[in-house]
Amino acid sequence: MNTHHSTSQNQPHSTSDIAQTTLLRQAQNAKAASYILSTAKTAKKDATLRAMAEILSNRQEEWLAANALDLAAAKEAGMRPALLDRLTLTPERIAGIVEGIRQIIALPDPIGRVDKMETRPNGLIIGRRRVPLGVIAIIFEARPNVTIDAAALCLKSGNVCILRGGKEAICSNRCAAALMREALAQAGLPQDCICLVQDTSRETANRLMHLDGYVDVLIPRGGAGLIRTVSKEASVPVIRTGEGICHIYVDSDADPDMAAKILYNAKCSRPSVCNAAECVLVHEAVAGAFWEKALPLLAQHHVELRADEAALALLKSLGAPAVPATEADWDTEYDDYILAVRTVADPEEAISFINAHGTGHSESIVTADYFKAQRFLDAVDAAAVYVNASTRFTDGGEFGLGAEIGISTQKMHARGPMGLEELTSSKYVIYGEGQVR
Amino acid sequence: MNTHHSTSQNQPHSTSDIAQTTLLRQAQNAKAASYILSTAKTAKKDATLRAMAEILSNRQEEWLAANALDLAAAKEAGMRPALLDRLTLTPERIAGIVEGIRQIIALPDPIGRVDKMETRPNGLIIGRRRVPLGVIAIIFEARPNVTIDAAALCLKSGNVCILRGGKEAICSNRCAAALMREALAQAGLPQDCICLVQDTSRETANRLMHLDGYVDVLIPRGGAGLIRTVSKEASVPVIRTGEGICHIYVDSDADPDMAAKILYNAKCSRPSVCNAAECVLVHEAVAGAFWEKALPLLAQHHVELRADEAALALLKSLGAPAVPATEADWDTEYDDYILAVRTVADPEEAISFINAHGTGHSESIVTADYFKAQRFLDAVDAAAVYVNASTRFTDGGEFGLGAEIGISTQKMHARGPMGLEELTSSKYVIYGEGQVR
Repeated sequence: MNTHHSTSQNQPHSTSDIAQTTLLRQAQNAKAASYILSTAKTAKKDATLRAMAEILSNRQEEWLAANALDLAAAKEAGMRPALLDRLTLTPERIAGIVEGIRQIIALPDPIGRVDKMETRPNGLIIGRRRVPLGVIAIIFEARPNVTIDAAALCLKSGNVCILRGGKEAICSNRCAAALMREALAQAGLPQDCICLVQDTSRETANRLMHLDGYVDVLIPRGGAGLIRTVSKEASVPVIRTGEGICHIYVDSDADPDMAAKILYNAKCSRPSVCNAAECVLVHEAVAGAFWEKALPLLAQHHVELRADEAALALLKSLGAPAVPATEADWDTEYDDYILAVRTVADPEEAISFINAHGTGHSESIVTADYFKAQRFLDAVDAAAVYVNASTRFTDGGEFGLGAEIGISTQKMHARGPMGLEELTSSKYVIYGEGQVR
Repeated sequence: MNTHHSTSQNQPHSTSDIAQTTLLRQAQNAKAASYILSTAKTAKKDATLRAMAEILSNRQEEWLAANALDLAAAKEAGMRPALLDRLTLTPERIAGIVEGIRQIIALPDPIGRVDKMETRPNGLIIGRRRVPLGVIAIIFEARPNVTIDAAALCLKSGNVCILRGGKEAICSNRCAAALMREALAQAGLPQDCICLVQDTSRETANRLMHLDGYVDVLIPRGGAGLIRTVSKEASVPVIRTGEGICHIYVDSDADPDMAAKILYNAKCSRPSVCNAAECVLVHEAVAGAFWEKALPLLAQHHVELRADEAALALLKSLGAPAVPATEADWDTEYDDYILAVRTVADPEEAISFINAHGTGHSESIVTADYFKAQRFLDAVDAAAVYVNASTRFTDGGEFGLGAEIGISTQKMHARGPMGLEELTSSKYVIYGEGQVR
């Protein structure tokens, strides 16, 4: 690859300059390591993952101590309880993370498989071989488990990772990265197969988005703001993940009871995740029967309903805690016990609305009508389209991928949950005997 | 999809404002058309392509007349003969273009195929269905044949295209787009399935790179400058194509005669294309025997050799027209009868040099040694890696894809020649019976 980033002629003098120089050196080392890791045998990668699991388990005291430093600082800074919980490591959680590594060891290695090998009329033998992407940079929130998951998935798929986690988890991440790098050394792979960006400033994150020639793919995991910044700023290829404004469309031919249970699950089982529903579209013909079933369920979590005019009147008449929706509500990912409610006259209106306001994540129709179900599957433009099921199933584990590094909401490269296969590229290999064209 | 582009509150007042408003309206129409085209049956798409072939053939006088206007303007502007030739349409070339459409009709439609459908333990039936990308924008040079090829490939794969061709071909492209849109109307598909950007200013091209929510993928076809601008500027997903600094590595175990013929073909059969070789790496042990065979062939086209120190001495002693290479030569795509020459001591040096200076397009080793061949295939990081064959074979037709829209030199989404399959995305379709998580 051509690399257009030369190191500065001058000595670095500010903290920022030093961080930039460090990042560039790290990226160069990562690229060099990727040429070794890309041709490493599965047995060696699995041995490294086993060493990682053992070290993280046997030396969890170090990791817990580092995490305690992060937690103390976060409490002092007044972090919200939900975020504090995501930042927290416990022996049980570490056991879960280690179990995750063991599951990744058990997954088949996608690298090296050759698809579609054939002999062309001129005798050339042409095949398409699965190869790693190379160097994958991941920008993510302050969740220590993501650090390990991402590193393990990248390693198994032959990719070097450059991890840039949230600043609130920096001590936990430094410790985890050091332990994982010990495992790499133990198994005889370059330590730079797993790199952690030590400087958590925005400037350095921004610089990471422009490491053309070193970073093959950038995966941002986090809020809508991060994803928008990355899409706007990055010159390296990006896989957008996560943003999820998901809809449940309750059709006139829906079983009201099934629809209520699906909506309740999609909204309330875990409202902070991207596959949770944010909006329900209700066919006017079924609205009364549906809400009669749905309201008692939603009331268990005091779900606030933000409804259009038609729905508002009905909901109020049923004594529900509904307020008028504004235009902004149709484009908001609440990640909370709030639900937008809209009335539609037919499935086509639901489809158009979803295609206009969805984020291409997960969408579901509840109906007993065959043709409407098929039409919804055909016409809705999203990573996962459901008939009679909760959107909460959009997940690597639920889809049978074993593990996932994120859920792509773009159409290029990968769409939906991304497992090991989605962390690969291809390379045509051609065997000749002197052929010229 | 969320669309963050609102039309201006003010009336457009300058030409540029009008062009921007027109482009936005075009993009909105394209997106709307894509929802219809994405679910169109193969028979309807093929009928449209047949109508396109007929109209372009039967009414070629109109197209030739429009092309004559472009050619006259180009001559007046002093366009180089090679570019003039690329801009020129003739009845024979039109016949070739129409034949290309007929070949695309004959190719299988990738859309709708479901991979990996399975029933999960909870009874959900989950499959991955091939779907169109949606709206594909293509920025390309003044080559009227590309206009048709791109439109036909996009149509067959269910994608709406927004074509932005070089300004020198604007009359030819306007005529071609109008004829193709007639074919769409005739077959009963929205005319906006094929859109031409009428304003060929850079400002409008730039705006095209930022139509998030309307343009699903942008494919730049053209020189390194365009590709760099797009990679840097675009906020919509991009597939980089074409830049090709390709190497031939002549190993110590190469048959000098085979190596000479492969290099001659890779350099001289069509030096202006991306899969032509720009640099030969010669193992020091074989240099004498190799150049003895290669020089007479290269002399037929007066190929200028830009050589490192070791090669320069040898080439001069053999009476070859060699000059010293500068550092810039190792990173230059000449697209001309110029060849960079470098001496290497072993295959690893060749591999490292290629990975540092190649563009990830096509690379070839000439050797009779089994292990060196396999090592080269494993370690070289490029879209197509050859043993004992010319790099000129990297092409959709030669690889058996039928037709191609470009050659991807990135690792995400598609790598190497991109045919119909590479113009698709996927969508998980999930059939449930009321499952919740």
